[in-house]
Amino acid sequence: MKFGGTSVADLERIRRVARLVSAERDAGHQVAVVVSAMAGKTNELVAWTDGSGAAAQGLTPSDDEYDVVVASGEQVTAGLLAMTLRNMGVPARSWLGWQIPIIADDAHGRARIDDIPPEKLGASMDAGEVAVIAGFQGVTRDGRIATLGRGGSDTSAVAIAAALGCGCDIYTDVDGVYTTDPRIESRARKLAKVSYEEMLEMASLGAKVLQTRSVELAMAYHVPVRVLSSFVEPGEAPGQGTIVCDEEEIVEKRIVSGVAYSRDEAKISLFGLPDHPGVSSTIFGALADANVNVDMIVQSKARTADTANMEFTVGKRDAARAVEIVRSVQPDVGFEDVQVNDDVAKVSVIGVGMRSHTGVAKSMFQALADKGVNIQVISTSEIKISVLIDAAYTELAVRALHAAYGLDQL
Amino acid sequence: MKFGGTSVADLERIRRVARLVSAERDAGHQVAVVVSAMAGKTNELVAWTDGSGAAAQGLTPSDDEYDVVVASGEQVTAGLLAMTLRNMGVPARSWLGWQIPIIADDAHGRARIDDIPPEKLGASMDAGEVAVIAGFQGVTRDGRIATLGRGGSDTSAVAIAAALGCGCDIYTDVDGVYTTDPRIESRARKLAKVSYEEMLEMASLGAKVLQTRSVELAMAYHVPVRVLSSFVEPGEAPGQGTIVCDEEEIVEKRIVSGVAYSRDEAKISLFGLPDHPGVSSTIFGALADANVNVDMIVQSKARTADTANMEFTVGKRDAARAVEIVRSVQPDVGFEDVQVNDDVAKVSVIGVGMRSHTGVAKSMFQALADKGVNIQVISTSEIKISVLIDAAYTELAVRALHAAYGLDQL
Repeated sequence: MKFGGTSVADLERIRRVARLVSAERDAGHQVAVVVSAMAGKTNELVAWTDGSGAAAQGLTPSDDEYDVVVASGEQVTAGLLAMTLRNMGVPARSWLGWQIPIIADDAHGRARIDDIPPEKLGASMDAGEVAVIAGFQGVTRDGRIATLGRGGSDTSAVAIAAALGCGCDIYTDVDGVYTTDPRIESRARKLAKVSYEEMLEMASLGAKVLQTRSVELAMAYHVPVRVLSSFVEPGEAPGQGTIVCDEEEIVEKRIVSGVAYSRDEAKISLFGLPDHPGVSSTIFGALADANVNVDMIVQSKARTADTANMEFTVGKRDAARAVEIVRSVQPDVGFEDVQVNDDVAKVSVIGVGMRSHTGVAKSMFQALADKGVNIQVISTSEIKISVLIDAAYTELAVRALHAAYGLDQL
Repeated sequence: MKFGGTSVADLERIRRVARLVSAERDAGHQVAVVVSAMAGKTNELVAWTDGSGAAAQGLTPSDDEYDVVVASGEQVTAGLLAMTLRNMGVPARSWLGWQIPIIADDAHGRARIDDIPPEKLGASMDAGEVAVIAGFQGVTRDGRIATLGRGGSDTSAVAIAAALGCGCDIYTDVDGVYTTDPRIESRARKLAKVSYEEMLEMASLGAKVLQTRSVELAMAYHVPVRVLSSFVEPGEAPGQGTIVCDEEEIVEKRIVSGVAYSRDEAKISLFGLPDHPGVSSTIFGALADANVNVDMIVQSKARTADTANMEFTVGKRDAARAVEIVRSVQPDVGFEDVQVNDDVAKVSVIGVGMRSHTGVAKSMFQALADKGVNIQVISTSEIKISVLIDAAYTELAVRALHAAYGLDQL
């Protein structure tokens, strides 16, 4: 069971979590619980690290001391939940990253989990204790605290489940995975099951319900993940939520499972590029060296003669830095102009059924054209199609696509 | 160097601490710094543990999970100070109790330090790093966090100094140890030196400048301790403070070094006790079994026949429990009545010179009598005399004694 920051935001909510854990145990299960920091606490801690002058001095969250400060948030929640469980008569103990240990690499602030020896945790659980685990944190091989980055508690939970050989229930503030964001489309439906591949695309395309890395991990280790709501009243069951599982376990495959969107994009346009080999590798090599993630890329021949234009997208907060990097290679590459547009949104349709059905792209472009939505950039994978559009059309596009694929009808 | 909660209460003060550390390093010293939680943070964390229902359910701060929650406060300060030092160009790293390790017993909430292997810490310091150590916390031999109890950071600092074989500067919100509390007697003088024995008595008799256990530890390992102020402006030196050291190192011995007071006492009076052996051991045995510390004790024959009266003091917050315990043994002991008075104060004069000078008690009682202060209970040791008086007379008594022993004149 994993509970995020809003689910443990105060003592009353921690008691609610304790009741859910207790009910699971009463149903005959051994339980390991992964918790995040109380909502708002991580931001408070991060603000202190900023105030220490780190940002001003060019130090970044990759600092090992940043991790020492920030990891304390999950430590507090783990201790409080263990105490609360004991007060309810449920044997429990807290586990910090270094105690299990959750062995991580030393990429502080965005560390990856290397290994979780399950022996200690398993022995405690076999002895009847609920294991209350601080999420988001691990320990490096030389004994320093390393955090997994924002949303890392999902990753902790899936990794623990993989180590223990069990499933993973992610409790959050929504009761499952929906065909699209219900705040935009009230006819959005909850999915009973969704495949890892689809969930992965949804997560990386803007659906905030699960963190991408946790889904990758679940897929790699075949950990069944269930998304469900922690906001239930005493005595009430949390419902079935949405199960994220292997594609083979989903009998009725839909062509399209969901519509995702993201406003975190910026489009960078390069004009008048010399049309010869090596140009792309110079530009994208420089961006990769600076750890700027590039998402969609299109290159087109300019109408006139020997030059080409290129457009690509990066995360909004990387946009200024990306332009700087592109300008720094201008002498080598020799393009004429660079422009940024961060008033764009990426809207995507996702579905494993695309593998076997043709015509999905065509109906997408048709639905958008019918509403007068202009497509700036297109990118596709085996199970998704994404388009970059003017941000003002986001909701319109999401609703049009949701209807076009019949997602509002069961 | 050790900095308490008020010295690291916010980022500006943490920067001030970093400047003091940096100056010490510039003076050619290797530096280990022990820090407390930011002022107010421990209380916030404790309030959460109370709110978790611990108190209501009879769980106490001796709970191991309480330690997990509360120890996070020092962790945050250690990380922030290490970051701040690095930003000033000073190599530094934080150390948590389990990383050094500071090995403690498993008396959670009031653990004692068993051992501090100095190898890891020493290697880091030899490599030029300032060691920034989270105070107040250790790790048990089975890998759980244990806290040392309130004020435990002083103990951490002295223990670290003992392990490293160096002296210990305790930075606090006062600039040294005074002959008495300057808030009560403006003519109180700062002592240049004070012996461990005197400091120990002062600490246990109410002077809040150092924690008793830290002084005991310093005395046992002959760690020279200096008390000085962290509240100095940039560029300003922190002054000489007060040195706490072996008695032999103090050339000019005073008869009385200081006057201490405490309002944390409650007096419990038992009337009509049968005057036969075994009564005291029943009563004080029961109190000891319940971990109630008894301080002063007097027994007196009642005017009438075969009974005695007894008065003893306990900490104010233990008073109600002490009465309960005493009542529970009433059937065995057979006293007539028990009364509590918590409107009392203990005022003490302390000085190693008492060993070789007679008449100290006489002049104390005379000075109090001259001001009309009635003495309820007296207790003495080799180097201190304490009296219990009506709390309303506290300031009057402190000033009278300060003058009587010439402490206001150098």
